[in-house]
Amino acid sequence: MQFFFRPRGIALIGATANPKKGGHSILYNLTQGFDGPVYPVNPRYETIDGLACFPSVADVPDPVDLAIVFVPGPKVPELIRQCAQRGIRGVMIESSGFAEAGPEGQVLQQELVATARETGIRLWGPNCMGLVDARRRYVFSFVTPTIWNEGLIPGKVSLIVQSGLLSGGFLIDLMTHGTTGVSKVCSVGNKVDVNECDLLEYLAEDPDTEAIGLYLEAIPQGRRFLELCRRCPKPIVVLKGGKSPAGAKAAQSHTASLAGDGAVVSGALAQAGVVEASGFKQMVDFCRTLAEYPEVRPEARGRVAILTYSGGSGIISADGLHALGLPLARLSEQTLSEIKKVFPAWMPVSNPVDLWPAVEQNGAQAVYTAAALAALADPEVDALFIHAFSGGFALGLDLKEIIAEARRRDKPVVCWLLGAREDARRFQVDVQALGVPVFREIPRAVECLKAIFTSRNRSAQPADEPAVPDEAKEQLKDAVGVLDEHRAKRLLAACRIPTVAEAIVADTAQAVSFAQAHGYPVVLKGLVPGAVHKTEQGLVRLGIGNREALEAACRDLAEAVGPNGSLLIQRMLCGQPELIVGALRDGQFGPCVMCGLGGTMAEILDDVAFAVAPLSRADALALINRLKTQPLLNGFRGAAAVDRNALADILVRLGDLMTAVPEIAEIDINPLICVEGKPVAVDASIILEKE
Amino acid sequence: MQFFFRPRGIALIGATANPKKGGHSILYNLTQGFDGPVYPVNPRYETIDGLACFPSVADVPDPVDLAIVFVPGPKVPELIRQCAQRGIRGVMIESSGFAEAGPEGQVLQQELVATARETGIRLWGPNCMGLVDARRRYVFSFVTPTIWNEGLIPGKVSLIVQSGLLSGGFLIDLMTHGTTGVSKVCSVGNKVDVNECDLLEYLAEDPDTEAIGLYLEAIPQGRRFLELCRRCPKPIVVLKGGKSPAGAKAAQSHTASLAGDGAVVSGALAQAGVVEASGFKQMVDFCRTLAEYPEVRPEARGRVAILTYSGGSGIISADGLHALGLPLARLSEQTLSEIKKVFPAWMPVSNPVDLWPAVEQNGAQAVYTAAALAALADPEVDALFIHAFSGGFALGLDLKEIIAEARRRDKPVVCWLLGAREDARRFQVDVQALGVPVFREIPRAVECLKAIFTSRNRSAQPADEPAVPDEAKEQLKDAVGVLDEHRAKRLLAACRIPTVAEAIVADTAQAVSFAQAHGYPVVLKGLVPGAVHKTEQGLVRLGIGNREALEAACRDLAEAVGPNGSLLIQRMLCGQPELIVGALRDGQFGPCVMCGLGGTMAEILDDVAFAVAPLSRADALALINRLKTQPLLNGFRGAAAVDRNALADILVRLGDLMTAVPEIAEIDINPLICVEGKPVAVDASIILEKE
Repeated sequence: MQFFFRPRGIALIGATANPKKGGHSILYNLTQGFDGPVYPVNPRYETIDGLACFPSVADVPDPVDLAIVFVPGPKVPELIRQCAQRGIRGVMIESSGFAEAGPEGQVLQQELVATARETGIRLWGPNCMGLVDARRRYVFSFVTPTIWNEGLIPGKVSLIVQSGLLSGGFLIDLMTHGTTGVSKVCSVGNKVDVNECDLLEYLAEDPDTEAIGLYLEAIPQGRRFLELCRRCPKPIVVLKGGKSPAGAKAAQSHTASLAGDGAVVSGALAQAGVVEASGFKQMVDFCRTLAEYPEVRPEARGRVAILTYSGGSGIISADGLHALGLPLARLSEQTLSEIKKVFPAWMPVSNPVDLWPAVEQNGAQAVYTAAALAALADPEVDALFIHAFSGGFALGLDLKEIIAEARRRDKPVVCWLLGAREDARRFQVDVQALGVPVFREIPRAVECLKAIFTSRNRSAQPADEPAVPDEAKEQLKDAVGVLDEHRAKRLLAACRIPTVAEAIVADTAQAVSFAQAHGYPVVLKGLVPGAVHKTEQGLVRLGIGNREALEAACRDLAEAVGPNGSLLIQRMLCGQPELIVGALRDGQFGPCVMCGLGGTMAEILDDVAFAVAPLSRADALALINRLKTQPLLNGFRGAAAVDRNALADILVRLGDLMTAVPEIAEIDINPLICVEGKPVAVDASIILEKE
Repeated sequence: MQFFFRPRGIALIGATANPKKGGHSILYNLTQGFDGPVYPVNPRYETIDGLACFPSVADVPDPVDLAIVFVPGPKVPELIRQCAQRGIRGVMIESSGFAEAGPEGQVLQQELVATARETGIRLWGPNCMGLVDARRRYVFSFVTPTIWNEGLIPGKVSLIVQSGLLSGGFLIDLMTHGTTGVSKVCSVGNKVDVNECDLLEYLAEDPDTEAIGLYLEAIPQGRRFLELCRRCPKPIVVLKGGKSPAGAKAAQSHTASLAGDGAVVSGALAQAGVVEASGFKQMVDFCRTLAEYPEVRPEARGRVAILTYSGGSGIISADGLHALGLPLARLSEQTLSEIKKVFPAWMPVSNPVDLWPAVEQNGAQAVYTAAALAALADPEVDALFIHAFSGGFALGLDLKEIIAEARRRDKPVVCWLLGAREDARRFQVDVQALGVPVFREIPRAVECLKAIFTSRNRSAQPADEPAVPDEAKEQLKDAVGVLDEHRAKRLLAACRIPTVAEAIVADTAQAVSFAQAHGYPVVLKGLVPGAVHKTEQGLVRLGIGNREALEAACRDLAEAVGPNGSLLIQRMLCGQPELIVGALRDGQFGPCVMCGLGGTMAEILDDVAFAVAPLSRADALALINRLKTQPLLNGFRGAAAVDRNALADILVRLGDLMTAVPEIAEIDINPLICVEGKPVAVDASIILEKE
């Protein structure tokens, strides 16, 4: 990919002298920053803007290994062939008129794919804004030349975006505000060849990139993408567009209906250690924060000390931290007495540390520095949240000493800033140059603190090779369609997933003998081939307490199921909580495993978590931890605490089964009842893709 | 209060010629904008900055009805007396050194209170930044004179703030960015006399104020505040500081432990139709949005049409709307075909409406206008969300026609804007002058759309006069301390709250006869005076299915409770869902009622809702609707739908009981089980304040 990012020479096919056209903007942008030769290609010109112009790419001299194409779609395939013949290794197609532009464009895009395969050349785009590299001042894009007016601000964050806006308008907005820079911005367009995975792989190794943000609407190579995220040593932030349901989906299992459009992708990203954003600027703010603080001390737990000049701002900050689950640091006695030294006698010290009365007495610099150094020395403090003001009153602050000490102690600092416009902008630029991200709203600063302490929650331990016992494989040999409850649980049991004691009974006598062996109460169910909703069809009798009732139930249900049906008897289990677990095959990520608490609750609260299979036990435990309702597992109101390892093992085995047996489309275990803390599958269904 | 906001003349006590002092800043600020006479008072000067200076307030000529005081605390009480003698009606004390500054200051503050009572003069402050009125250019504050550099930007929003920052630094930040103005900003400081209620009452009538934002850390006159909010014809936004728990509170009842610090105030504010904010700028953004759109069409349901020039931004906007529960408008066939007219043939129309290909073909102005007018004409569209870009590419837009049509149709429009810094700022100012709020981040624009459609959810119907039946009053006569379960339910039953059938039984024979009359299974409980946790103490036997088991349970429990205890037998009710309801007496708001679903779940999910008693039925139904888990009431998975009116009536009656009987401290009904959709109190406790 190096020829895209650091080409030795660039041919611009579709260069023009007309300053209203994109083909001129690209040329202008190339000449402003690119440090290699630029060869305009257009048979209609001898020169453009003083540069020699070539009739075709075949005529372009060495060195050249990148072509940028900005000509109407139908001409593009032939031009790609010419580029390949000329020895060019990569083509960036910025023109539009392909798959995004209706059926004809789709045909044309297919032709691009074929040409790339045929020639081995790499294609970037089409329908994209190309590449902006603010560090090298490379603008391989038709982005408006006004981008040079305020200068490209170099930063540590690279972006990969599936939206032209984010590499065009958004970049102009970002740059002209003068406080946030970028490293590389890659606009991927229709992704006919080069995609987010290729770029992520490159940026993971790029020395100019310290954090990576991606805006994606689809992740077709989901598995590869997750693997790259897992292995990437740099923080990754994803803004995933299209998470709201576009409409009700047809889904056979609860698991599938709970997946929605967002739950699977959120689970997969969390599992891979990716931070999710919900807006463009938030994505960039997360990235620039994580670029400064990619890792935290192993013992850090997100305990924040707030240094403020305004009581109200301290309170709002504390409320915000609480809402996101970040604890306020409890300052030690030593820290408190250290800070007390710069405080007026009447003023007590607590966290948030309200410095204003002390600032009035002793000056901002001395007071802020004393308080910050004391807080940083406190082992209970994991991060500092500094409130600053620039321009207008007695809060001129130099944060150098504080920031250096924070770096030495490996504790993140973020800053919230108010101030008169230009003063504040200068302050922000200066402080950010020292490596401390500055924010203009408290909630954003708090969100970024949260991102620092959640970014690296990757499970270090990779999943084992998925293994499915022979007995389970044996059972699957002749299975087709929807497995009934009993067959589903036999298969799960063969995979060492605990299931309720049960048996198919041929007659009342067998039922009674099962009940005598296992004890009352029992449950009797009528199984009818193809029937899924047993309860709604009156085919389930719960809580049968004695022989007479059982005999009556056998008579009733035998009649109800008819000659093709059968009767299933099982122990009646009672326990709390009830869970739902399952698995499905996602279009982007393949086999995935799901867990939620209390079937109905999971649905209403939309509180289910997914992970991509196969799972390590650490993956499974982390999945469980992502449930909002997971405190219920700790044994509420006298119920036994749920054995999280046992639950995790069930999820791991479900994932192994899905991974090893591609014929399985969906698995539902609902409910999975916790009896004395041990989860047991009580009802289940498995849907096979083969009919 | 008029003399604070529009005084005929102002005496400034503590005026000084030293430009480094606040007493000079106030004088400077007064002379820049105030249109009445200003009288500096300081015995050390003859004149200050060319104004005649008076040795004492007694010497100040007419007219004068406001004094601003900026002298050290100990001198203030005597000065207030002098002001009263001079006929001055209001004193704004901006100096600090009172209750916020330790014990001596607290004594001084008490003296202020006494002086105000004694003289009848009104006091504003102390320890405050006074008043800024950007419309009249009145700055009665020591806020830094740099505030005049960029000019005061007049706006429609007034603020009442309990933090100096918000009327000082925050205002400078807001003003110098040049896009957001304010009307009046009132800094209330220590609120020794004039408080948020007085100011709210004034601003509710103020013709220069169209929406009111308040930052408050405490609402001591909670009832009065809520009543003012309810009656205020203008939108009100509150940012409540201090909602995160400062520590575990001692609480006897579940209701009290679920109240936390934030749940009661959030419930009370929602009930009064107030919008809550979580940050300073968000508060101002909500206010400036609601100032433009204080009401929506009665039939509006928040259905939004998105007009964008970027597919990705449309998707992120749709995701954001979905996350906040605002529906995407389904455009009618007519609207779609109207928009299709300006679209390229290959481009389908849907919502979000991606206008870019059409803009390239037909120009931004024509395309945006056609699409917006079509969407506004669609009865399925309640609001427009327009994406704009300013500076740099072909998106020069004039929104006048669109905005006029939207006003005519009474449909709100909000705008998200990117652009080159100065271009975008100008665009924002111009569009906002037309009455359309502009935002720089999509999520903020979406939050403000949400605020538009939730702001006016006030129950029109006031609560009835609380009535408690005589029988209940009779029962309460000799009651003290904690009422046991049986007495608590008798009292609730007397208040027409449905309770489970139960009886105190003296012996086994009575128990058996109860069971025969009501049917098995039954529950037997041992009541011991003072014992609250019956289950944990082994005093509860559930699901007793026959006479033998009942007799055995009677023997066991009779022994366990001993001679002072008694046995309670009740029908065993089964049903879903289980609820918790209760009531408590809040320090700020007085009697409040609470409801949550599924005791344990309510706790783990922090999903309970409060309202202030007495409640109208509409209040109670709205309270129920605020629960995240309330869809469970609709009858999930075969359970009967809960009779919401019956549940609301229980909440109303609890509220009446709490209001009419001030001795009741707390009430818990847990669980309240829904049997065939009808809620019945199964266990309860009532705590009286008298011992």
